Amino acid sequence: MTRVVLLSGGTGGAKLAHGLQQVLAPGDLRVIVNVADDLELFGLHVSPDVDSMLYALSGLVDPERGWGVAGDTGRAIDMLRRYGEESWFHVGDADLGTIVRRTAQLRRGRTLTEVTAEMAAALGIASHVLPATDDRLRTRILTDAGDLEFQRYFVERGQRDEVRGVTFEGVAAARPTVAVDEALRDAEVVVIGPSNPIVSIGPILAVPGLREAVAAVPVPRVAVSPIVAGRALKGPADRMLASLGHEVSALGVARLYAGLLDRYVLDEADAALAPAIAELGMEPVVAPTIMRTDADRASLARVVLAAAAR
Amino acid sequence: MTRVVLLSGGTGGAKLAHGLQQVLAPGDLRVIVNVADDLELFGLHVSPDVDSMLYALSGLVDPERGWGVAGDTGRAIDMLRRYGEESWFHVGDADLGTIVRRTAQLRRGRTLTEVTAEMAAALGIASHVLPATDDRLRTRILTDAGDLEFQRYFVERGQRDEVRGVTFEGVAAARPTVAVDEALRDAEVVVIGPSNPIVSIGPILAVPGLREAVAAVPVPRVAVSPIVAGRALKGPADRMLASLGHEVSALGVARLYAGLLDRYVLDEADAALAPAIAELGMEPVVAPTIMRTDADRASLARVVLAAAAR
Repeated sequence: MTRVVLLSGGTGGAKLAHGLQQVLAPGDLRVIVNVADDLELFGLHVSPDVDSMLYALSGLVDPERGWGVAGDTGRAIDMLRRYGEESWFHVGDADLGTIVRRTAQLRRGRTLTEVTAEMAAALGIASHVLPATDDRLRTRILTDAGDLEFQRYFVERGQRDEVRGVTFEGVAAARPTVAVDEALRDAEVVVIGPSNPIVSIGPILAVPGLREAVAAVPVPRVAVSPIVAGRALKGPADRMLASLGHEVSALGVARLYAGLLDRYVLDEADAALAPAIAELGMEPVVAPTIMRTDADRASLARVVLAAAAR
Repeated sequence: MTRVVLLSGGTGGAKLAHGLQQVLAPGDLRVIVNVADDLELFGLHVSPDVDSMLYALSGLVDPERGWGVAGDTGRAIDMLRRYGEESWFHVGDADLGTIVRRTAQLRRGRTLTEVTAEMAAALGIASHVLPATDDRLRTRILTDAGDLEFQRYFVERGQRDEVRGVTFEGVAAARPTVAVDEALRDAEVVVIGPSNPIVSIGPILAVPGLREAVAAVPVPRVAVSPIVAGRALKGPADRMLASLGHEVSALGVARLYAGLLDRYVLDEADAALAPAIAELGMEPVVAPTIMRTDADRASLARVVLAAAAR
C-alpha cells in the first residue's frame, strides 16, 4: 500500500492518474486537479480538468480525444446554438449531465470538493479527485489580442495567440482545501503529472501555501516531463514555454520545478538531457513516457513508483 | 387576416395551435400557455407546456408522444441519474438544451415571456407563444396521498391518485403579462383549446383579471371540447372531472366555461349533447375533433374559425 498524491491537469496527467489507479490499491491515489480553467457556460459551472479526470478514472473517457465521454452526442449543444448561446465550447450530452449536476449541487450549497467526491463515487471511482481549491481561481492569458479568459484562448481562439503572460485571477484569496492539505500530509509519494507546467500545474502550485507544502513534504517527489523531444504531446505547452522565455525541453520544465522534486522522469528520446537534470538537484530517470494504451499508462505508473522507491 | 388568441395547455391545445398556425397568416396566432405545471428540476426551470407548444409549432415535436423532441436521446438524464438526481421526470438531450437556455436567460434577468419569445423566434415560429403570467404560479393536487406538486401527481405518481381538489399556489399575487393583456385586447377571435379544463385552462383563467378579460372581449369566443364520448383523448381530465363532481362529458366541460363562450365545438360522437350545450347560452358546433394528422389539425382549425365567423 502506497499513498500517492498526483498533481494534474486534464490530459497527460489524467492518463498517468489512470495508470496509477491501475497499479495502486483502491483508494490509494489522491489527485489534486487544476480548477483554474473552469468557466461559466450557459449559466452552468464547467470544470473541464475535473471532468476529464472523472472520465479518465471511470473509463468513460473518449480514448481518441482524451476528453469528454466516449460516444457522446451533441443534441443539447445543437439546441443551445439554435437559441443563440455561445457555441465555441463543445459540451456533449452526457457531459452536460455532469455539468448540470455539479451546478445544481453547488447551488444547493455544496463545495466543489464535496460535489466532486460524490460524483466520483457515483461513477465507481475508488481514487480521490480533489480540486486544488474551492475558491474561485481563473487563469488569464495575456496576448496581443488582449487579456483573455483561459478557455477563450484555449478553445475559442484555438491557442493561436502568442502567450505574453499568464495570471491567476483570485489567487491571493484562494486557499488549498482541507482535503488537499490532508492528502499532502498523508502522502507517501508525491507526483507531478505530465501536464502543462504553466497553466495546469502552475495554478495548483500558485494557490498560496501549496508550492511550499509540496516543497516541504518529507517523502519522495517525482515529476514526469510533459515535453518529449522538444514538443508537447498535446496542447500548447511547447509554444507557451517558448514565448514565456523558457527552454522548450524536459530540462526547461524541470527548471520550473526546481526545489520541488527528488526524481524526474524524462523520455528515452531526451536521455541526453539527464546530466543537466541531475545538476538541478533531481535524479533523472529515463523511461518510455508516451501513453498510448492502458498498459502504457500502467507501465509509466510503475516507473514513477519505482523511481520514488529508490 | 384574423388575429386569433388561443388559450392552451401542452397536448390537445398544442395540436390545435399547430392547426391554426397552418391556416392563419404568419404572426396572426397568439397562444396564451399554461405555466402552472412548471417545475424546478436539477436546479433548472422547466416549463413543460411552453416547451410542448414550442415543439408543436416548430415541427420538432415527437409525433408519437405529443411532447418532447422527435428522435431525442437521453444521455444527459442517464448521467444525472447515475449522480443520484431525481429521475422521475424525463428530459431528452435536445429538450435539456431548451431548459438550460431558458434557465440561463431567466438568471440573466429576462422574463419568461421574453425568453419564450426569443426561443420561438430562434426556432422559426411565426406565432406568438405567451406564458399566461411571468409570476410564480404552481398547480397543487390534493389527494389521499397528500397535497402534491402537479408533476409529482402527473408524472411521478402517474396520475394514479384520485384528485380531491386543485389549488393554484401563488395565484393571488399573479398578474397576466402585458403581452397577454394586449393579445386579448387586439384579438378578433378567442379560442379555448381542447386542453384539460381543470389543470391546463383552469390556471390560465385563474390568473386574476384573466377570466374577466375573456368574459368581456367583444369578439367571438369558441372552445373545443377535450372530452369525446365521455373520455379524455389524453391525460386524466376525465377522472379529474369525475372526482371533482363534474359531469364527464363535453357538456360538463362546457358548464365550466359558462359565460365565456359564444360557440362550442363538440365531436360528432357527442352530437346528442348539442341541445344541452345550447341551453348554456353557447351555440353548439358538431364536427370531427380528433387530430391524428397535420391535415386533421388544419381542418379543426378551419371549423373553429368558421364557427367564430358565423
